Amino acid sequence: MTQPRAAIILAAGLGTRMKSGLPKCMHQVGGRPMLEWSIDLARQVGAESIVTVYGQQSPQIGALGEANGTATALQDPPLGTGHAVQSAQDAMSGFGGNAIVLYGDTPLITAATVEKVFTALEDGASVAVLGFSPDDPAAYGRLVVKDGLLDRIVEFKDASEEERAIGFVNSGVLAAPAPLLFELLGEVTNDNANGEYYLTDVVGLARARGLKAVAVEGDAAEVLGVNSRVDLAEAEASWQRRRRDELMRDGVTMTAPETVFVAHDTQIGPDVILEPNVVFGPGVTVESGAHIHAFSHLEGCVVHGGAVIGPYARLRPGADIGEGAKIGNFVEVKKSTFGKGAKANHLAYIGDATVGSKANIGAGTITCNYDGFGKHQTHIGEGAFIGSNSSLVAPVSIGKGAYTGSGGVVTDNVPDDALALGRAKQVNKEGWAARFRAAMEKRKSES
Amino acid sequence: MTQPRAAIILAAGLGTRMKSGLPKCMHQVGGRPMLEWSIDLARQVGAESIVTVYGQQSPQIGALGEANGTATALQDPPLGTGHAVQSAQDAMSGFGGNAIVLYGDTPLITAATVEKVFTALEDGASVAVLGFSPDDPAAYGRLVVKDGLLDRIVEFKDASEEERAIGFVNSGVLAAPAPLLFELLGEVTNDNANGEYYLTDVVGLARARGLKAVAVEGDAAEVLGVNSRVDLAEAEASWQRRRRDELMRDGVTMTAPETVFVAHDTQIGPDVILEPNVVFGPGVTVESGAHIHAFSHLEGCVVHGGAVIGPYARLRPGADIGEGAKIGNFVEVKKSTFGKGAKANHLAYIGDATVGSKANIGAGTITCNYDGFGKHQTHIGEGAFIGSNSSLVAPVSIGKGAYTGSGGVVTDNVPDDALALGRAKQVNKEGWAARFRAAMEKRKSES
Amino acid sequence: MTQPRAAIILAAGLGTRMKSGLPKCMHQVGGRPMLEWSIDLARQVGAESIVTVYGQQSPQIGALGEANGTATALQDPPLGTGHAVQSAQDAMSGFGGNAIVLYGDTPLITAATVEKVFTALEDGASVAVLGFSPDDPAAYGRLVVKDGLLDRIVEFKDASEEERAIGFVNSGVLAAPAPLLFELLGEVTNDNANGEYYLTDVVGLARARGLKAVAVEGDAAEVLGVNSRVDLAEAEASWQRRRRDELMRDGVTMTAPETVFVAHDTQIGPDVILEPNVVFGPGVTVESGAHIHAFSHLEGCVVHGGAVIGPYARLRPGADIGEGAKIGNFVEVKKSTFGKGAKANHLAYIGDATVGSKANIGAGTITCNYDGFGKHQTHIGEGAFIGSNSSLVAPVSIGKGAYTGSGGVVTDNVPDDALALGRAKQVNKEGWAARFRAAMEKRKSES
Repeated sequence: MTQPRAAIILAAGLGTRMKSGLPKCMHQVGGRPMLEWSIDLARQVGAESIVTVYGQQSPQIGALGEANGTATALQDPPLGTGHAVQSAQDAMSGFGGNAIVLYGDTPLITAATVEKVFTALEDGASVAVLGFSPDDPAAYGRLVVKDGLLDRIVEFKDASEEERAIGFVNSGVLAAPAPLLFELLGEVTNDNANGEYYLTDVVGLARARGLKAVAVEGDAAEVLGVNSRVDLAEAEASWQRRRRDELMRDGVTMTAPETVFVAHDTQIGPDVILEPNVVFGPGVTVESGAHIHAFSHLEGCVVHGGAVIGPYARLRPGADIGEGAKIGNFVEVKKSTFGKGAKANHLAYIGDATVGSKANIGAGTITCNYDGFGKHQTHIGEGAFIGSNSSLVAPVSIGKGAYTGSGGVVTDNVPDDALALGRAKQVNKEGWAARFRAAMEKRKSES
Repeated sequence: MTQPRAAIILAAGLGTRMKSGLPKCMHQVGGRPMLEWSIDLARQVGAESIVTVYGQQSPQIGALGEANGTATALQDPPLGTGHAVQSAQDAMSGFGGNAIVLYGDTPLITAATVEKVFTALEDGASVAVLGFSPDDPAAYGRLVVKDGLLDRIVEFKDASEEERAIGFVNSGVLAAPAPLLFELLGEVTNDNANGEYYLTDVVGLARARGLKAVAVEGDAAEVLGVNSRVDLAEAEASWQRRRRDELMRDGVTMTAPETVFVAHDTQIGPDVILEPNVVFGPGVTVESGAHIHAFSHLEGCVVHGGAVIGPYARLRPGADIGEGAKIGNFVEVKKSTFGKGAKANHLAYIGDATVGSKANIGAGTITCNYDGFGKHQTHIGEGAFIGSNSSLVAPVSIGKGAYTGSGGVVTDNVPDDALALGRAKQVNKEGWAARFRAAMEKRKSES
Repeated sequence: MTQPRAAIILAAGLGTRMKSGLPKCMHQVGGRPMLEWSIDLARQVGAESIVTVYGQQSPQIGALGEANGTATALQDPPLGTGHAVQSAQDAMSGFGGNAIVLYGDTPLITAATVEKVFTALEDGASVAVLGFSPDDPAAYGRLVVKDGLLDRIVEFKDASEEERAIGFVNSGVLAAPAPLLFELLGEVTNDNANGEYYLTDVVGLARARGLKAVAVEGDAAEVLGVNSRVDLAEAEASWQRRRRDELMRDGVTMTAPETVFVAHDTQIGPDVILEPNVVFGPGVTVESGAHIHAFSHLEGCVVHGGAVIGPYARLRPGADIGEGAKIGNFVEVKKSTFGKGAKANHLAYIGDATVGSKANIGAGTITCNYDGFGKHQTHIGEGAFIGSNSSLVAPVSIGKGAYTGSGGVVTDNVPDDALALGRAKQVNKEGWAARFRAAMEKRKSES
């Protein structure tokens, strides 16, 4: 990479076909807004300057660009793609390297593809356009290539029969040295049917100056633009397939990969087994050799090697499950650490807790961590045994090796190796049930 | 629509390839029996008279037709499709408009398609047949069209090589003015290999009278007839795809649409998010802006705007979840109303209850609504705080702003702003666990 | 079958593309190791002698072969497929019948296909090879067939342009009379680029002796060899589709078959309904007429006719659910028997228990079956009513028709028809919550 790089991300479009109160590029793929995919893409190819272009009606886009550390530019009013890129000119003043125009609604483009576009500039082209060859070229602009150079981009409606037969079309992604790009954009006019300033016009303007333009071929699946919720679902599906394949090739077993949903940052080690129907939110790391049973849901958590999760386990942010630990069915864990070999196998809620190694948490145990105002901590010592259906009223500490009796409410700390009981003595009322049933049957027969 | 309309729904077939004790048309697609899809279709196109034709061995079909407000006709014994239609003659006596023959095992036909068939009659045809062009015309009857008119229907086994090359085939759906239809059926004979009276023969009889017959082209995917459980699954899948697409186009986000299963009457507003693996039974309305997390199951319930459901939430009939309310993991709600912003986030069963706005129901809470004989009500006031692992023994009322202590059994009403405690005092037995372990280890070593 | 049959299963390959610490043939399809599919296949076609060939680095494969009752042979070092088969010679000494070479990584081959290969020998061939015609013959060895006989197998790299055009390729499965097979293998040399002894060379050697070789055509989908986790997932998907189709054809309803995952030995009766997202581990029988709701997980259990399971029910090994019994949402059952019509509808853990017919187990009930050392039994009598949120501390017995009060801890046996109470009396502290809130708000405003 001999030239500094920049990216201008066009994200001002409202996306009316989304039928949403949320700006289009805020909609998510792989658990993060589409705009962030494009920002991340720019970072991956080394862009040192990134500008997010947003519109008057999508201030959230500008805010998200800022939150991700990009410069932002307001395009107002929207007068076409060329105009959108021009809006970024001030934010890039002084930048003399190569700039690429990306979009906030094409989350599937890979760094390898963008690298090819920048490389075309570094190899001597003045303008480089990313093209692709879809199954149905439909109404995309046609890329007219002559002698290996991009001659011009012809809009479908302006195309001759011969030009329409071209299957190689424009993705909208275009790169050029930034000063040249803005200079050419200054010459673009809105002298067309829509009265818009088109970015594509810079190709013709460059050619008119005798400059070299090229078209780089990309994968049709990558440049899919999202314009509706159907497109969004297709982009999600496409990305999921790609990521699952990578994970499997890296040594993850998925019984039914099509039922596993990962997030953009999901990390899974080799020889992890994922059974059907596992859903990952953002921020999950699963270490080598862990086994995630069916119907599990993980987000913001770490599962260490050899741990066994699920089925029907929910790990929420801050869960840290130690080596060989087990979190079983209908168990929710939040902001809690499980030591090595600790177990919560059935129907439990463990929040704001530390669970010592080899501790065993009985079925139905609840950490009562909330009093309506604040959250409180529960500490369970190594090797402790929490009886079934226990209520641990935080803040509370259960000592190492301590036992708590089934069905007990534990409000006070329990010393190491002690037994805590907190339940009423059982009373049997003989014959009561027979009398109750008789009374009920009588009432029924009388009614 | 210039003519009154009627529909005769043939549903007498046993469906032996279903290998079922249930008559074929009772099997469900989108959560309702296939027969009801056809009845609903007839209603959608304005049929004022609808007759369900059932057989001797499928009285449930007749009963279901009646339950849905159709007339019914018993075809006994079954002597062919023409005979089946004739069975409906008495039930339609006096009806002079146009009648269409539909089937109880083709749940995917749309109103737009049936409309086209009726329109053909209204435009002057005497008989209109719905045809389609499948990928593989297989052994379907061929529609021989000449000069824009339907000349005849040729059964596959009777077809010449040339006729077999025709890709346009008979769906079985046929319409004609009712008086003409029954008149022509009176002339149909069973002089064929199977000894059956074929409905298709009316085309030839009409042509012989110099009447005009036409074939209307329908979508092959719509006319799929269900003859086996494999077909049933395909019909379900086809319908689910269609409905999901509609919902997405109307503004519903589905992360993984292929994992969302809706019912025939599921209503979902725009900007609702459905995560992977959400299953809807009948009778659900989800208002705009609600978020349904993964692994949720909803039936017979209303989710108001901005409510957050799941993951792993089960809403059963009669659940009404208020604006911004939250129903979390491993929570079941039945016949209960949650006020605005109320929460039951973890492991709870709430049945036959009203939960006031902003009330917070702790993890593990159970409404003890059943005593083995009747169901009883629980009322939880606005802003009440139900401690974790509480048992609320109905009938019982918890006042506004009241607290109940963790692990408590609440059998009596709790006044507003009071605290209810129902638990034993904790006792710690020092060293007990150490002695217990020692005894157990000793026993193990001795055995 | 006129000749005794034997099978030599090659399973020594490490499968480096699996990127796994587990030998390739240990990876599972349909819930059992791939090797077991091949052993089972050999048994299905009547092989009386089966040899599992394993390698130095995969002793688990040898052990699994032994555990499944096969002879085993160590191939060390690995010198090619011919050498691998030769390794089995000692283990088969004295066997004079026909032997087939199978593979431990092709779990989809059916008995019908293998039967065809053996039949070819029984019909007079000296060597029979299983070929197939994939969409893309890629680099598979080409089967050159002349006058109905297999002339030779040409490795792709050695093939002429004309030979590469052949679409019929070698699966690797080969059969011959065992004495002949080993005799020919004794003549195979490693005089080739890889320095390996190829099994395929026996075809040429047989032909050179004037013996008859034939190629039998198999289904390309069956002979898929698993070399990566992606292949493994494809094999699983292929097998699941096949098995689901069989089940549907036998009368099982699956709303969404692609979301149902069965195991190799899953038995499901007719008119069972499986809703979306049902996962079966090994060892499950579901009798006719049972209904399994969405999100259920079953392994090692029996569900009797008319029982209703789920949604979100987990049946673990040893669960036996009686006729018409109900196991509802968020309920886990392990090593327990439910009598006819017994119910555990909500949020419960029932382990090591017997539940009498028509008994009703309230929401939140936990059998406290584990004391940190051993598991203990709970007996619940016919028609007993276990109050919600009960803790049943095993060993314990609840009599017929007995009641237990909600939220109670039951440590002692309960006589028939008695009521057991084990809870503290409720105390209401008036105004406490108002004072608590005021104090909390004050603290917050001061901080």
